[in-house]
Amino acid sequence: PDVVRDVVIGLSDGLTVPFALTAGLSSLGESKLVVLGGIAELIAGAISMGIGGFLASQAERDHYRYLKKHTASRVLRSCQGEMEREVFGVLGPIGIDETTAQAVTKCLRDVEVDTGMDGGSSSSDTESASLRWSKDVGLTPFLLKFGEGMEEVPTKRLYISALTIGLGYLIGGIIPLIPYFFIKRAKVALLYSCILTGLVLLIFGAVKARITGAGAGAGGYVWGAISTLLVGGAAAGAAYGIVAALEG
Amino acid sequence: PDVVRDVVIGLSDGLTVPFALTAGLSSLGESKLVVLGGIAELIAGAISMGIGGFLASQAERDHYRYLKKHTASRVLRSCQGEMEREVFGVLGPIGIDETTAQAVTKCLRDVEVDTGMDGGSSSSDTESASLRWSKDVGLTPFLLKFGEGMEEVPTKRLYISALTIGLGYLIGGIIPLIPYFFIKRAKVALLYSCILTGLVLLIFGAVKARITGAGAGAGGYVWGAISTLLVGGAAAGAAYGIVAALEG
Ligand SMILES: [Co+2]
Ligand SMILES: [Zn+2]
Ligand SMILES: [Zn+2]
Ligand SMILES: [Zn+2]
Ligand SMILES: [Zn+2]
Ligand SMILES: [Zn+2]
Ligand SMILES: [Zn+2]
Repeated sequence: PDVVRDVVIGLSDGLTVPFALTAGLSSLGESKLVVLGGIAELIAGAISMGIGGFLASQAERDHYRYLKKHTASRVLRSCQGEMEREVFGVLGPIGIDETTAQAVTKCLRDVEVDTGMDGGSSSSDTESASLRWSKDVGLTPFLLKFGEGMEEVPTKRLYISALTIGLGYLIGGIIPLIPYFFIKRAKVALLYSCILTGLVLLIFGAVKARITGAGAGAGGYVWGAISTLLVGGAAAGAAYGIVAALEG
Repeated sequence: PDVVRDVVIGLSDGLTVPFALTAGLSSLGESKLVVLGGIAELIAGAISMGIGGFLASQAERDHYRYLKKHTASRVLRSCQGEMEREVFGVLGPIGIDETTAQAVTKCLRDVEVDTGMDGGSSSSDTESASLRWSKDVGLTPFLLKFGEGMEEVPTKRLYISALTIGLGYLIGGIIPLIPYFFIKRAKVALLYSCILTGLVLLIFGAVKARITGAGAGAGGYVWGAISTLLVGGAAAGAAYGIVAALEG
């Protein structure tokens, strides 16, 4: 699901901005110029989305690790009452009463203390014995995962994510550029580019709707296709219009 | 925090791609061309990031609502044992034992059933009486929020988010373009553009590190500044190099 999400992000931006830029540059007449500007933007965009996205995820992960250390030490320092209040702060809004929240706190505390302190003594829960060596049980992961809504992203995922978004951008962005490799007059190439990219935008929009499962059946696919086409068309139209207005 | 996140996303992309594009087009000599291409890309990029982002968030929210209906009806149809298994599936990995998970399930079920069915009868928990009219308590929100990690985004947020990202992109992208409005020779303007944008990238990178709170003190700010500068520089260098190579 995350790889799919990254592909969608990359393709969405890649099918829109490069298409609009080539449309805008077409207004100046020469396909050669469109290709030069288009390829420059493609490489730049892929680097920005890819590496930029990688750095952003890396910063988020560093932030998670910092928060984890910070939370774990706070948990060790706190007394039962303080932890009960925190757990109730997380579970209360969802409908759990204080007594049940206290039971949850006790359970989490048993596991956390067992995991954090000595590794050899038996714990009060027989089940948690198998979990004792896992670093992902106890109050700290509970507060992080359910309280803050944060989870750790494995390093491998960071690289895969960056590559996926960057590649998605490249693939999406090369499509509108293709006619310009073969047709010298930019305004003619633009026509083919619009037809080709328009088709891809419609298909991609429908597939996007299917993937995210908006769950509205055929109507959802149609809206997905049309909205995606409209965004691309609006961007291209605006770019063409601006250049024509400034140039003419 | 979310507005901040959107500004960072918009500014990051806006400071990188338009800068790289103007660098690439500079290789062709005329500032006028750089301005035309740059503005076309700016408008296109802002539309893509802004409206595209809006549609993406809207699709996510529609998906959440669909999942909510689906989950709520499944909860009403299920027996206690099935719900206990689901709740244990969410709480077990974090260290909660089955007995405590069953207590949590019972509590959530009481609230959900009270909320879903008749509005007038008294519930077993006196505390949940005040929560009874809220739509955000019970098994359904528990399974969605803690099981799937999903929450509903208010419509107002969707619009604010789209505007913020789009504006961030525009502001970030106009900065590298400024020298080209005043200096006719693109390669000279490029020099000023690099200095100006390089400075902004460094400052923005440090501020980003501060905001995301990587928590590494001065070293974190330096790495934030340098990494942001490097990504922008790499994109610009690649764009300039590609155009120079293809053109020359
Ligand atoms: Co972008
Ligand atoms: Zn205390
Ligand atoms: Zn326990
Ligand atoms: Zn889903
Ligand atoms: Zn059953
Ligand atoms: Zn209860
Ligand atoms: Zn934080």
